[in-house]
Amino acid sequence: MRETEIQQGETAATVGALATPALLLDKERLDRNLARLSSRMAARGVVLRPHMKTAKSIEVARRVYRSGPGPITVSTLAEAEYFARHGFRDMTYAVGLAPHTAERAMRLRKAGVDIKVLLDSPEQAMMLGAAGRAAGVTPSAFIEIDCDGHRGGLTATDPKLIAVAAALDTAGAKLAGILTHAGESYSLSEPQVLVATAENERAVAVAAADSLRAAGHQCPVVSVGSTPTAHFAEDLTGITEMRAGVYMFFDLVMHGVGVCRIDDIAISVLATVIGTKPEKGWILVDAGWMALSRDRGTAAQRVDQRYGLVCDLSGSIYPDLIVAEASQEHGILAIRSGSAHVLPDLSIGAKVRILPNHACATASQHDLYNVVTAGNDAIEAQWLRMRGW
Amino acid sequence: MRETEIQQGETAATVGALATPALLLDKERLDRNLARLSSRMAARGVVLRPHMKTAKSIEVARRVYRSGPGPITVSTLAEAEYFARHGFRDMTYAVGLAPHTAERAMRLRKAGVDIKVLLDSPEQAMMLGAAGRAAGVTPSAFIEIDCDGHRGGLTATDPKLIAVAAALDTAGAKLAGILTHAGESYSLSEPQVLVATAENERAVAVAAADSLRAAGHQCPVVSVGSTPTAHFAEDLTGITEMRAGVYMFFDLVMHGVGVCRIDDIAISVLATVIGTKPEKGWILVDAGWMALSRDRGTAAQRVDQRYGLVCDLSGSIYPDLIVAEASQEHGILAIRSGSAHVLPDLSIGAKVRILPNHACATASQHDLYNVVTAGNDAIEAQWLRMRGW
Repeated sequence: MRETEIQQGETAATVGALATPALLLDKERLDRNLARLSSRMAARGVVLRPHMKTAKSIEVARRVYRSGPGPITVSTLAEAEYFARHGFRDMTYAVGLAPHTAERAMRLRKAGVDIKVLLDSPEQAMMLGAAGRAAGVTPSAFIEIDCDGHRGGLTATDPKLIAVAAALDTAGAKLAGILTHAGESYSLSEPQVLVATAENERAVAVAAADSLRAAGHQCPVVSVGSTPTAHFAEDLTGITEMRAGVYMFFDLVMHGVGVCRIDDIAISVLATVIGTKPEKGWILVDAGWMALSRDRGTAAQRVDQRYGLVCDLSGSIYPDLIVAEASQEHGILAIRSGSAHVLPDLSIGAKVRILPNHACATASQHDLYNVVTAGNDAIEAQWLRMRGW
Repeated sequence: MRETEIQQGETAATVGALATPALLLDKERLDRNLARLSSRMAARGVVLRPHMKTAKSIEVARRVYRSGPGPITVSTLAEAEYFARHGFRDMTYAVGLAPHTAERAMRLRKAGVDIKVLLDSPEQAMMLGAAGRAAGVTPSAFIEIDCDGHRGGLTATDPKLIAVAAALDTAGAKLAGILTHAGESYSLSEPQVLVATAENERAVAVAAADSLRAAGHQCPVVSVGSTPTAHFAEDLTGITEMRAGVYMFFDLVMHGVGVCRIDDIAISVLATVIGTKPEKGWILVDAGWMALSRDRGTAAQRVDQRYGLVCDLSGSIYPDLIVAEASQEHGILAIRSGSAHVLPDLSIGAKVRILPNHACATASQHDLYNVVTAGNDAIEAQWLRMRGW
């Protein structure tokens, strides 16, 4: 037997013929989600710089930017290089800088990509300056601001803020502006608290920019963002730029936060029933954590969706049917505890669609999106994802 | 700028020069773990059929089988096809059968691969028979036995057991034997309970095989397995075959169960410090859940390792330093709550190694293993992983 005689899978033309588990992307929902935030930001005169960490796909980026590349945010330098190969030139790498990433980002800058980096210490400013000189380019950097104690960055009143800006000057690097992220917003669910959190993100960002300006530094860009605050912010005075990523697909966590409806969720995992245990109230499917991810982001929310919420092939929810347990390639479907609903009659070979807790994590378990439109069995396209660092 | 001018990453020759995050595999620990279980099974006259779902790499399989392909277990048909392309012929696909997987497995059988499938219903036996006839091959199937209520399968005393064997006969398929998996063993930690659980797995498997034989069916293979029971079983009378996968690498969950020492864990994620927040007791690294996985398998154990335990480059543990929080590309290192240890002095650019909760999940976030030997900075090889279904 020659190696070529054994093929891996086959490209299917219909959802019904897909090998499972497989990732589906509803193009109409995607487009609706994209339009919603784009219009919201356009109405406020704020540049939307979508975060590509969720989709990681040039085809999705082309749905965002129909007439040519626009500004993006990336989470890895492999992502930056991938989008640069596809013509994107204006990008922010929104993860704190280290010596090897400074060098790699400056090689990209040398190749004509306007990549901005992120830092919060004079030490990083110096290493960026050195990498810029080595590559023969002028670096451009955001100073990271901490608006909610969630991760990295300096508070708006930290005297180090001015020291970092001064270090950038000394190092021969340009201050692009300040950047902050309301990471805490993912754990919220009360609309008025979300509005207040968005306002806090805005106010801290503007205060930091004002401090820098008062100290004589240009601070052209004031960048904020998270999917919840992007959708709940009422006032964006002083903000020039919004970043968000998961809004493209949405997910059960975002539904729990209150940012989207269930029928806005654009991705789902197609799975096949491989066993039934009616005596236990279980249906076994071939989607385990390898296809769904181990993300349990709804565990801390009012409604715990365990490993996902189950729909039929048309996308209609089976009431209270969730993926109760997941091992590597097995999922156990069961009715949510306390519910009066009964297990649907699904026999071996039946197909279901599972809505994910966290779109970034679930999509990353797959190599491509099978692009579909609700009510249509055809796979319109297969859009590849990139991965790695 | 031409596309070729922007390269993704570069192949590094040393650990110090690797772009991070990156997956490291300690070859000596791998070999030691492989030898430990191989000798244990050889001493008991039981065939070891390693589960390739953890490693998913032909190079790792070649460390198991130095003189040519041997029996393996796989978790997806893409895995089966991958190992078949590399010369493996004797394999068990240990996930319940559906119509499309029956057809795909029988195509592989037609190509000369002795693939055995898994089922627990007469309905599946019939669909397997049909797929076999369509491909012009005689299928071979295991009946799945449920030894601990953990997932699929029939109990040893379920009358359906004989009905499934009869359905295989009728369908023109061969009964390979019975297969069970002590999934419950992963949640244990008391040696005497582990020994009892292994004995239960054995006893149930043998009882099921005896039932089948008493009803006049051949039941040549009696297959059991999980990494904990494989290492704790004292008696394997009546068992012909053992399956285990995570034993190759081990992980913090297996350490918590009591199957391995910390210094048996063969994989780790190399990460770089990208920020410090001494006032909060935090060190930020560039390994988040994308590099570590969202697996929190130690959460239910006596020692919760959060997203992983942190070592220096040589593999020595920083006492009580764990990855306390993880977002997509950020990890927050902190000293375990209640510990008297202090945060090590790690500045931006410093490298650490993170031991994973769950090797199957963490390895699946990476495309390749950087193969190293303790105390040596050289990367000896890069072994690719396969993925997908």
